[in-house]
Amino acid sequence: MTTITSVDVVDVRFPTSLSMDGSDAMNKDGDYSAAYVILNTDDPTLAGYGFTFTIGRGNDICVLAAEQRALPLIGRDVDELVGDLGATYRGLKSDSQLRWLGPEKGVEHLAMAAVMNAVWDLAARKAGKPLWRLLADMTSEELVDVADLQYLSDVLTRDEAIGILTELEPTRGERIAELEGTGYPCYTTSAGWLGYSDEKLRRLCQEAVDSGYRHIKLKVGADMADDVRRLGIAREVIGADANLMIDANQVWDVPQAIEWVSALAEFKPLWIEEPTSPDDVLGHAAVRRAVAPIGVATGEHGMNRVLFKQMFQAGAIDYCQLDAARLASINEILAVYLMAKKFGVPVCPHAGGVGLCELVQHLSVFDYVAVSGSLEGRVTEYVDHLHEHFTDPCIVENGAYRLPSLPGYSAQMHAASVAEFAFPDGGYWQAALGTAGSAA
Amino acid sequence: MTTITSVDVVDVRFPTSLSMDGSDAMNKDGDYSAAYVILNTDDPTLAGYGFTFTIGRGNDICVLAAEQRALPLIGRDVDELVGDLGATYRGLKSDSQLRWLGPEKGVEHLAMAAVMNAVWDLAARKAGKPLWRLLADMTSEELVDVADLQYLSDVLTRDEAIGILTELEPTRGERIAELEGTGYPCYTTSAGWLGYSDEKLRRLCQEAVDSGYRHIKLKVGADMADDVRRLGIAREVIGADANLMIDANQVWDVPQAIEWVSALAEFKPLWIEEPTSPDDVLGHAAVRRAVAPIGVATGEHGMNRVLFKQMFQAGAIDYCQLDAARLASINEILAVYLMAKKFGVPVCPHAGGVGLCELVQHLSVFDYVAVSGSLEGRVTEYVDHLHEHFTDPCIVENGAYRLPSLPGYSAQMHAASVAEFAFPDGGYWQAALGTAGSAA
Repeated sequence: MTTITSVDVVDVRFPTSLSMDGSDAMNKDGDYSAAYVILNTDDPTLAGYGFTFTIGRGNDICVLAAEQRALPLIGRDVDELVGDLGATYRGLKSDSQLRWLGPEKGVEHLAMAAVMNAVWDLAARKAGKPLWRLLADMTSEELVDVADLQYLSDVLTRDEAIGILTELEPTRGERIAELEGTGYPCYTTSAGWLGYSDEKLRRLCQEAVDSGYRHIKLKVGADMADDVRRLGIAREVIGADANLMIDANQVWDVPQAIEWVSALAEFKPLWIEEPTSPDDVLGHAAVRRAVAPIGVATGEHGMNRVLFKQMFQAGAIDYCQLDAARLASINEILAVYLMAKKFGVPVCPHAGGVGLCELVQHLSVFDYVAVSGSLEGRVTEYVDHLHEHFTDPCIVENGAYRLPSLPGYSAQMHAASVAEFAFPDGGYWQAALGTAGSAA
Repeated sequence: MTTITSVDVVDVRFPTSLSMDGSDAMNKDGDYSAAYVILNTDDPTLAGYGFTFTIGRGNDICVLAAEQRALPLIGRDVDELVGDLGATYRGLKSDSQLRWLGPEKGVEHLAMAAVMNAVWDLAARKAGKPLWRLLADMTSEELVDVADLQYLSDVLTRDEAIGILTELEPTRGERIAELEGTGYPCYTTSAGWLGYSDEKLRRLCQEAVDSGYRHIKLKVGADMADDVRRLGIAREVIGADANLMIDANQVWDVPQAIEWVSALAEFKPLWIEEPTSPDDVLGHAAVRRAVAPIGVATGEHGMNRVLFKQMFQAGAIDYCQLDAARLASINEILAVYLMAKKFGVPVCPHAGGVGLCELVQHLSVFDYVAVSGSLEGRVTEYVDHLHEHFTDPCIVENGAYRLPSLPGYSAQMHAASVAEFAFPDGGYWQAALGTAGSAA
C-alpha cells in the first residue's frame, strides 16, 4: 500500500513583469506565478504535481488555501484515491465551510484546481501513462462518473453525457494515431503583448509565420490608435488569409466593446476575446449579436461549469476558452467539454502563463479523441515562455503540439527552478529584494 | 491631519455549530465567523471597523487577503480617504495582480468587502453620523460618484443613475421621519433552522408571531417528508395570512428545484430562496417561470454587481437578497440598489450570520429614503443571535429594525468578544481545543 505522507505547496513567482511578457490592457505588470502542489508518498519514486496559475501578489493566499484544501488527502491510500477520482473530488469539494468562500469560484476554486491537478497527475503517473491517455483508456461510463454534473441536469443529463462519449468510443484509436502524426494545432500569443514595440511586434509576427503558425493573437483595448496601427502591422506581415485574433482582457463595458470591435472590423479578426466582464453571459451574447461575423471568445476567467453552461445556453460565445488551472481540474473540465459538444461550440483552451500549455495539450488531445471528434474551429493557445522550468515541457512543431508521452499531467517543475523562484525565499527573489525582502 | 497608522485583521470564530444555529441543507455545521478589520489612526478616538462573514474554516484565508488588500491604506490621510470614497475604492480595486484571483469574486472580494466596510465605518464615524445618514446627506451626484458602475452601462448609465436619485432627493426627509416612527420591517429566520426539533420549531414560530412578525422563514431541501411536516407545523402556528418563506440553500439542480417547490406549493410560500447554484441566472429564470406565483429570491451568494445585473435583465428573481459582506461594500451595493430600482425588483437584504443585521439595517433605511422610496414587497432578514458581541447592536421591535443612531456602520465588536473568540488563540478556543490546538 502506498500512502500520501505530506503535501508541500510552494509560492513560485517568475519576474515576467521585467520584460513586459504578458502585458495587456488589464494586466500591465504581471509576475507569472504558480501555487505549486506536491503530493508526497511513501514510495520515493511516486509523487503528484499540480498547480494553479496567478500573476503575482496573492499567490501566497492560493498557497494557504491549497494547503488547507489538501489536508484530507494526507494519510490516504493512493490506490483508493486514484481508483475513484470522482469520489476523491467530491470528498474535497464537500467541505461546506470552505464552500462558503466561493462557492466554486475565486481563490478557493483556484486552490481546488491546484490540488486536484496534482491528484490527476498522480493518477496518471501511477498508471504509467500521460494524462490524455489515462482518460482515453477510460470507458464512457467511467468518464461520466468522474465528471462533475451538479447543477447541469437542465442541459446535460448523465445519460446524454454517456451517449456523447459512447458514440466516439469505438474510433478513439484512429484519432490517436492521426494526432501522433500531425500533432494538435495551436496558435501563438507570443507576438502580441501590449508592452512590445512596433518593431518587436513586426519581427515576432514574421517569426510566427515562418514557424508555420496560421493563427496569431494580439492584445487590444488600451488605445484605439495603437490598436489600428498594430493590427495593420500584423495583417501586413501575416497576409490576408492567416487568422488574426484580438484580446481585450475585459477592459470594456458592453456598448464600448461593440463600438471598439466594430472599429477594428476592417482587420477581419477571427475572434474578439474577453470583450467585457468574464461573468457577463448576457453581455457576451449581446456583443456576439452585434459584431458577427467576428466571433466572441472567452473562458480563461470562466469561474466554473455553471458559468459555461449559461454561456452555451445563451448562445454567448463562438469559442470556449476554458482554463486548466481555474476550473477544478479534469472533473469539472470534462463537464464543460461535454456541454460544449452538445451545443456545438469548439473548445480552444486558454494557455500561456506558467505551465498552462503543458496542461492543456492533454485536454485538447482528449477532446479530439473522445468528446468532439473534430478539429474544426479548434486551435489551442501557445505562448513561448517559462517552459524551461518544467521536466516534461510541451513541444510545439509547425504550429502544432506534439503528443505528450511521459507519465503524468506534465505539471512537474524542475526542483532547481522551484528553489530559485520560490517567493520570497528563493535565490532569485533574495537577490532581487535585497535584505529588505518585503515586496508582497 | 489624521493618518491610518496600522491595520489589524482578526480571525474571529463563534462556535455556533454546537447549537445547530444556522444549520441548513447545504451548511450543516457552520461556525459563524468574521474576518474583522480595524483601521487604526493616530487619533486615539477614531478607528474604522469592518468585516466579512464566513462560516469557519478558511476565515484565516480571508484574514490574510484582507491584510494584503488593506496595505495601501497605511499611512494615508483619513480626510483624503473619506473625502473621495469612490477614489479610495477604485484605488484598492485597481491592483491587477489581486484582480486575477477573482476577478471580483470569492475570497478576494470578501476581503475587499471587509476592508471597504471598515473604510465606510471610518467615514461615518469621522462625520459623526450613522452610515445611513451619511449616505442620505450626500447629493445624487455624490452618490453616483462613489457607485461602481463598471460593466453596467448596458443597463444603467450614469445619467440614469443620477435621475433615479434626483427624483427622490427633495423628499428624503419625509421618509426619514416616517422610519424614525415605524422602523424598517423585518422577518425572522431564527425559527426555522434544519437542525431544530419539531417542538423547538413550533415554540419559536409561536414566539415570532407573538413578537409581531408577519414573515417567517424555514430551511428546506434535505428531506421532502420533513419539509412537508415542518411547513405544516409552521402554517398551523402562524395562520394562513402570515407570510411563510422557504430557503433551500442551493441544494437542487434546476429540474429538481421545480419539482420540489411545486410539491410544497400547498403551503403557499411567498418565496423560494436559493433554489439552485447562486451563479445560475438562467436557471433561476427557469425556476421562476415554473413555480409562479411563488417568488424566487437569491443574492446572499451573489458574487458581484455583474451577476445581479443579469438577474435583473433575465427576469430571474422576484426578491434581491444582496449581502453586505460579500459585495464590495457601499460602492458596489449602491450600484445594485440603483439597478434594482430601475428593474422594479425589491431588495430584501440577506442578514444573520455575524453582524450582518447590524450592517443591512443601514442599507434598507437608505434604500427607502433615497433610492426606491417604497416598502412594498420589502422586508429585511433578522436573525436573533450574536448581537451581544457588537458595541452598537441592532434593535428590533414589533418586527421592525429601529433606526441606528450612533456614528458608524454598527460594525464594531466588543474588544472582549474579539479576545475571547479569536481563532485559535482566544480564550474560548484555547479551552475548546485543549493543548492540541489544531482544529483548522
